[in-house]
Amino acid sequence: MNIALIGAKGRMGRAITDAAQQTGHAIAAALDAGDDIPAALAAARADAIIDFSHHSATAANIAQAVALNTPLIIGTTGHPADEKKKLLAAAAAVPCVWAGNYSVGVNLLYALTRRAASVLGPDYDAEVIEMHHRFKKDAPSGTAARLLEIILEERHLAADAVRHGREGITGERTPTEVGMHSLRGGDVVGDHTVIFAALGERVELTHKASDRAIFARGALRAAVWAVTQKPGIYDMQDVLGLT
Amino acid sequence: MNIALIGAKGRMGRAITDAAQQTGHAIAAALDAGDDIPAALAAARADAIIDFSHHSATAANIAQAVALNTPLIIGTTGHPADEKKKLLAAAAAVPCVWAGNYSVGVNLLYALTRRAASVLGPDYDAEVIEMHHRFKKDAPSGTAARLLEIILEERHLAADAVRHGREGITGERTPTEVGMHSLRGGDVVGDHTVIFAALGERVELTHKASDRAIFARGALRAAVWAVTQKPGIYDMQDVLGLT
Amino acid sequence: MNIALIGAKGRMGRAITDAAQQTGHAIAAALDAGDDIPAALAAARADAIIDFSHHSATAANIAQAVALNTPLIIGTTGHPADEKKKLLAAAAAVPCVWAGNYSVGVNLLYALTRRAASVLGPDYDAEVIEMHHRFKKDAPSGTAARLLEIILEERHLAADAVRHGREGITGERTPTEVGMHSLRGGDVVGDHTVIFAALGERVELTHKASDRAIFARGALRAAVWAVTQKPGIYDMQDVLGLT
Amino acid sequence: MNIALIGAKGRMGRAITDAAQQTGHAIAAALDAGDDIPAALAAARADAIIDFSHHSATAANIAQAVALNTPLIIGTTGHPADEKKKLLAAAAAVPCVWAGNYSVGVNLLYALTRRAASVLGPDYDAEVIEMHHRFKKDAPSGTAARLLEIILEERHLAADAVRHGREGITGERTPTEVGMHSLRGGDVVGDHTVIFAALGERVELTHKASDRAIFARGALRAAVWAVTQKPGIYDMQDVLGLT
Repeated sequence: MNIALIGAKGRMGRAITDAAQQTGHAIAAALDAGDDIPAALAAARADAIIDFSHHSATAANIAQAVALNTPLIIGTTGHPADEKKKLLAAAAAVPCVWAGNYSVGVNLLYALTRRAASVLGPDYDAEVIEMHHRFKKDAPSGTAARLLEIILEERHLAADAVRHGREGITGERTPTEVGMHSLRGGDVVGDHTVIFAALGERVELTHKASDRAIFARGALRAAVWAVTQKPGIYDMQDVLGLT
Repeated sequence: MNIALIGAKGRMGRAITDAAQQTGHAIAAALDAGDDIPAALAAARADAIIDFSHHSATAANIAQAVALNTPLIIGTTGHPADEKKKLLAAAAAVPCVWAGNYSVGVNLLYALTRRAASVLGPDYDAEVIEMHHRFKKDAPSGTAARLLEIILEERHLAADAVRHGREGITGERTPTEVGMHSLRGGDVVGDHTVIFAALGERVELTHKASDRAIFARGALRAAVWAVTQKPGIYDMQDVLGLT
Repeated sequence: MNIALIGAKGRMGRAITDAAQQTGHAIAAALDAGDDIPAALAAARADAIIDFSHHSATAANIAQAVALNTPLIIGTTGHPADEKKKLLAAAAAVPCVWAGNYSVGVNLLYALTRRAASVLGPDYDAEVIEMHHRFKKDAPSGTAARLLEIILEERHLAADAVRHGREGITGERTPTEVGMHSLRGGDVVGDHTVIFAALGERVELTHKASDRAIFARGALRAAVWAVTQKPGIYDMQDVLGLT
Repeated sequence: MNIALIGAKGRMGRAITDAAQQTGHAIAAALDAGDDIPAALAAARADAIIDFSHHSATAANIAQAVALNTPLIIGTTGHPADEKKKLLAAAAAVPCVWAGNYSVGVNLLYALTRRAASVLGPDYDAEVIEMHHRFKKDAPSGTAARLLEIILEERHLAADAVRHGREGITGERTPTEVGMHSLRGGDVVGDHTVIFAALGERVELTHKASDRAIFARGALRAAVWAVTQKPGIYDMQDVLGLT
């Protein structure tokens, strides 16, 4: 496949370039801020466009993809909610994959967590643990936040059911709380575990990331999938057939 | 619900009696070898019959359930394959749940493992680990054997793909092998983990049993479910809506 | 060995009675509140006295042990600090083992944690995780609190270095904090893990309790050890040769 | 500190160069096969020599270190046993650290495993698990083999007590066996766990490597330590004060 990559010099751009090479895809255009992106995209005749540049460039990149009728994979984050709504509406004119996390394993974890929360029911106490490197500045991780959302959705609980930290005389655990534990230390790329614990048994679902290349490979997998789809907005759950 | 329990004095029978008490179900008849089981079953007018007695009694118990048109939960094991086929045919005249393991969590693990093996594909190396108490006389456990079967089915691999123990100059791991590791020690009731490992990430699915009561509660859940079903043979995947 | 057991009808008393039977020790006197304990102790001529009754009885029991010159194992908790000081002074007239936790494994974990904290130094971020059943009313567990104390001591940190729960914009982890995470769920008897994480590696030390009998066996091990010791106050670190 | 590094262009040599830069040490001489190593070492006036080149060069490098009276850190492996004996005798004329694994965490794991095996005694069933990437060609890992040795030494067991793989009708676990389980998959740098399991409790000691830089930093730590020592042969247990 021929891929046009926007944000090619960034950390993720370089990872995608490496992953493309390893999986036999060509980078037909490697573009960054400062390049004449519209002209380069038009010339590249790419099968798909992957954008991991910056959220401020998303609107322009969507416009190009639509003009060229080319599938688009969006990996930028940080769009204000209102703007994102408009961007999604515009991007729906081509097959567009827009996901917060392109790792196959994390997306599988989302789907398995939903299944487990649904099958196991409220008698299984749910707790989420994540561990990341000492340099991470916020908690919980975006992935853990998504896991919490999934559990809350399946159990019809509000966001205040999440419990960050237990200390002192807490009383017995209530069935409607979900514990969240953010460990920090060393250079851990990202570990996530969801525990469902009942009287007599525990089910634990874990993802461990060891290399950020998994996000690059996931974006490429999304691109390969997108070229066979009708126009519309998709996420990695669609790409992986997890919905 | 009113339950007739055959094999009431056995280890599982007592666990079911305890679990019934805790969950508000009545044991309308507690029966064992030596009792006049047909007469007692007829008198009990139970909503469902649970049989954890002995495989030699299964044929007679199925005949009674069919005669009384009462749902039947079978927990005995060790039937010769030929005989089992005939028993299944006979039992299909009533709603009959027949499973090797009645734990909700283990059955969920089966379903999640199938999903993971299907989504992740052969680039994710699969390894199964189980740990049981020091008194266990065989390996791997029945549950681990079922997990292996599921992985082999999803990957279209033959049984000889399973690798028990690695030692010496093994060469690089092949993508078509599935590692199996049986740990033994202490009084561990039963831990099972399936690992899928690729370059950059691992997904791990774990079940930990701490109390054999989970099997009793699962059998009761099967009974509650069976009374609303059409005649036929079901397993716990059906009861839990996992198929 | 002949053992006089005070608090014989309590949960721990019964566990000690079972453990004594399994390990070939005799319970020369099984005593509870309401019995004429002084007379019974004098008659029993026990090799050691084990007291798991109630903290209000400790002073009297120490007096008896000293009068009979018999080694004493104390398993009661909840003494006010001032009173405990006096009790320790009195008990030092005989070989007296007084520990917060009689499990061999937990006491080993204390010693290994001290060693690890000392060897690894402050570049290894320390985090403590514990999981207990849903009915536990306080957090962290006493055992986790002791693990924190050990880490703080080795690193010359004050109690406010402990961090319970991370949420929101936390900033990067500081080397002088110790994370504490209390999970609650199901019927977990007690899991404890200490993590030391640096750039490139993690060391994790874990204890998993599956049966409260380990505390009974530890108390018996303390009794066997005490009969060969000089008068004085000891804890399980002494009994196990961990100091 | 000024360090002379032999084998500077190899994988470990480059890791040591990076680690030196990060920790403020100077590489006074970066040497490889083909260089005039004796002349360069004499000119460099290094505080210590680190050799990660090739076992065939060890004899010559020891001779140089002794001639210059400079502490020496040896990281090469694969010396025939007879030759190694002679090399050790020669190297003892200077402070010489010679270890199979320079990671601080792994060496701590060795010491903690020895302690645990000694304190816990034969009633605690010992099992060792390791996981490495799919490209590893032998099993168990060198680190796991050393962990087994330590357990066998503490329990006075012969090498045939190690059990690789359990399958079929194994009978109950014997107290004198040590289970060894080598998992392979993905790109795992190296995980090792030692389990001690008794009735009622488990102790688990784990090391997880995520970056080979830990071996480089360990070698530098050994160099810093060596310059303050008397002549003699040491390993990382000595460097870390673990003996």
